[in-house]
Amino acid sequence: MKLSRRTGKVMPSLKDAIRSSCLKDGMTISFHHHLRAGDYVLNDVLHTCTELGFSNLTVNASSIMACHTPLVEAIRAGVVTGIECNFMHASVGHAISQGLLANDVLFRTHGGRPAALESGTAHIDVAFIAASASDPEGNCNGKEGPSAFGSIGYAMSDAVHADYVIVITDHLMPYPLTDVSIPENLVDAVVVCDSIGDPDRIMSGTTRITRDPIGLLIADYTARAIEACGLLEDDFSFQTGAGGTSLAAAAYIGERMRKLGVTGSFASGGITGLLVDLLNEGVFKSLADVQCFDREAAASIRKNPHHVEISASRYASPQAKSTIVDRLDAVILGATEIGTDFSVNVHTDSNGMIMGGSGGHSDTAAGASLAIIAAPLVRARLPLIVDRPQTVSTPGKTIDLLVTQYGMAYNPKRRDLHDCLTGAGLPVFSIEELKEKAERLTGKPRLLKNEGRIVARVIGRDGDELDVIRAVHK
Amino acid sequence: MKLSRRTGKVMPSLKDAIRSSCLKDGMTISFHHHLRAGDYVLNDVLHTCTELGFSNLTVNASSIMACHTPLVEAIRAGVVTGIECNFMHASVGHAISQGLLANDVLFRTHGGRPAALESGTAHIDVAFIAASASDPEGNCNGKEGPSAFGSIGYAMSDAVHADYVIVITDHLMPYPLTDVSIPENLVDAVVVCDSIGDPDRIMSGTTRITRDPIGLLIADYTARAIEACGLLEDDFSFQTGAGGTSLAAAAYIGERMRKLGVTGSFASGGITGLLVDLLNEGVFKSLADVQCFDREAAASIRKNPHHVEISASRYASPQAKSTIVDRLDAVILGATEIGTDFSVNVHTDSNGMIMGGSGGHSDTAAGASLAIIAAPLVRARLPLIVDRPQTVSTPGKTIDLLVTQYGMAYNPKRRDLHDCLTGAGLPVFSIEELKEKAERLTGKPRLLKNEGRIVARVIGRDGDELDVIRAVHK
Repeated sequence: MKLSRRTGKVMPSLKDAIRSSCLKDGMTISFHHHLRAGDYVLNDVLHTCTELGFSNLTVNASSIMACHTPLVEAIRAGVVTGIECNFMHASVGHAISQGLLANDVLFRTHGGRPAALESGTAHIDVAFIAASASDPEGNCNGKEGPSAFGSIGYAMSDAVHADYVIVITDHLMPYPLTDVSIPENLVDAVVVCDSIGDPDRIMSGTTRITRDPIGLLIADYTARAIEACGLLEDDFSFQTGAGGTSLAAAAYIGERMRKLGVTGSFASGGITGLLVDLLNEGVFKSLADVQCFDREAAASIRKNPHHVEISASRYASPQAKSTIVDRLDAVILGATEIGTDFSVNVHTDSNGMIMGGSGGHSDTAAGASLAIIAAPLVRARLPLIVDRPQTVSTPGKTIDLLVTQYGMAYNPKRRDLHDCLTGAGLPVFSIEELKEKAERLTGKPRLLKNEGRIVARVIGRDGDELDVIRAVHK
Repeated sequence: MKLSRRTGKVMPSLKDAIRSSCLKDGMTISFHHHLRAGDYVLNDVLHTCTELGFSNLTVNASSIMACHTPLVEAIRAGVVTGIECNFMHASVGHAISQGLLANDVLFRTHGGRPAALESGTAHIDVAFIAASASDPEGNCNGKEGPSAFGSIGYAMSDAVHADYVIVITDHLMPYPLTDVSIPENLVDAVVVCDSIGDPDRIMSGTTRITRDPIGLLIADYTARAIEACGLLEDDFSFQTGAGGTSLAAAAYIGERMRKLGVTGSFASGGITGLLVDLLNEGVFKSLADVQCFDREAAASIRKNPHHVEISASRYASPQAKSTIVDRLDAVILGATEIGTDFSVNVHTDSNGMIMGGSGGHSDTAAGASLAIIAAPLVRARLPLIVDRPQTVSTPGKTIDLLVTQYGMAYNPKRRDLHDCLTGAGLPVFSIEELKEKAERLTGKPRLLKNEGRIVARVIGRDGDELDVIRAVHK
């Protein structure tokens, strides 16, 4: 009795765990992407599914990362025939764009994914949850152990909604784990492996402030625009991505808050060391963390009670009774392209090849009082602003302001911003003016029109189809 | 925009919140009992429902406490016609036993209640969740504020499964609350009131070690029996109730563990200051807390990361994929009566009047390796052991050992305990021998047989009907 209690749900191998799940051909398996470019788990599971002879599986992953190229092999072998995700790195995206996958990829958002699970639109048969620490009954977290990655927020929805939940860890701890992010009552099986990920790549190096003067200028304009709009007062809340310009904007916002003596309420999203510093300094009172972007964030969430782990549902689900994103004063987002109606593409590159996805882009844009696109007006000789983006990732009506190094343009529906911005001496143009400015630098780009078959569908956070992505033949 | 963000889901009054819920006659409203004998919330809600003219409501409360006598008035007025609960204090129980309620009370267990919600057997239309601290979006806990009561574990299932969730607090904190037990994504409305409970009665005074020599002797036997069974080794886990004898047993177990140099894994259940002391001293590594019984426990859960709040589901739901109770080495429980088949009554008194309920009794008995009933052989001139208890609250097959001041009896299915117990010099008898011993002291009790109509049904933790309770006419 005692012995089996100590063994709990631990399976001898991943193979045994998959067998115990009664996984069948045609079913959906799920993954989360907190291990980012260092994740071994998705690849290990697909390898094992291949060995076990499965076919026709659908992979529902919060994101497909650069390290997930073995997925391409699994598709070629017929093991995987469907993908649902919120983001897809070019390493897999290009293969999809070339028509590799039988079924259309379903792109959702970080909030739309849990919403689809909550409403039953999406279903997970077997969830594979990478945990940096687990006990033998599956009480687990991402905060302890050699592969610690911090928040496990995206996987919380999988644990609640999947029929069968397998926790995979490289750090088995005695029962009961005390810092529990996903509790045992939701977990069916536990697998102990040598390593769930490459620690050096789990926390990717994308999270440094840019040194590029153009990026710094955009960041400065962004911070000044937020202040000009009157948002930098006590209880200010905001989110940025982890790109260099976003981080520079966050740093500038912090500086302005210090100068104004303003104490912010919270910063949310993927959390970086820069935000941790602002928390520790008292510039913000708390962090709402669905994903840690770097080591500093992962270390902080483990020990600072004001650095709070949140589920994907609480972060952004339109099915939730309220969310963090709906409380945001400002969000700073990137774009590959932006249309003159302010609709944004973050899915495809200039050739129409898949190389990204919404992640929390659409969710935060919809929720925040001031949704800002901060991006260089020209990149690789291509203009940012186009008549209509290749792919609509985020509807234009949810974007309030575009900031570039040549000036900014507010969405006409936010005419109320005009006086604030110009009053602060900021360079304000119409989006058409900025478009012309770009085209004077780059020439008018040739209109690319893919006419291949549909390879992916972009599902808006509310569940409606926003756009489709078509095959590109090189 | 900013203003409404700060107001969040806060309703001007309880009346407004109830109106916003679209509550209708015949629906089910739910409550949790962490405020124990000090709770104002159930009474306030029933008062408001009466004012609003509701009728035919079912109250699903984790427990009905001594302070809930206004429920009797609400029943008389036809506002409430159904009750589902895991425990019912005599103050309401006696009225039920006299046939006051139109429908049968459904008694479940602390694990059976979340299981019924998870399986859909039970449904909550509107949950009323008393929280000692909440922010305007309903992120809440029981740990902060003037009415802090500690764990809010039983209410977690209500928050997940109810159609509409109203948080009632007397301590509104700025968004976002950081120590979140129930997150905003599950909450529809927030009501701020003057006080959710009487702080002096929230933490009742039942949690002192007995000074009664009979109780101390039973406690000593109990601790010695647990040691004799070989359970007092590293990673030992146990649970006791909050009665004086149980607490004395816990203290004796702590002493024995110290002497043996044993470090326990966890103690669970309703948590008392005594268990907090054992945690702080390092005798146990953690506490799994679904309910705090006293101030010391409520203070500890707020600050000690090894004092872990758990949901009712993780605690004991038979629908959960594993639970704390299934990991228990030993549990020490009380009894009003115990049958010669070891089945236990904790629902009715010697007259057959309702004065209790299973709470976690059946759940821990089913889960623990060694389930002990520790009780005096004779109470108020009535013998503990009877042929068949008035009410079967916990099936005999789940009880391993009975300990009284005159000696102990193991369940014949646990014949393996014989040598351990006698080897340790403990006084072992058959349950029939103990029964005779009691009857020599008290005389054979007159057999009471209630023939009134059914007033309550005892639902076992797995959902099957274990027994019925009939009306008693004085």
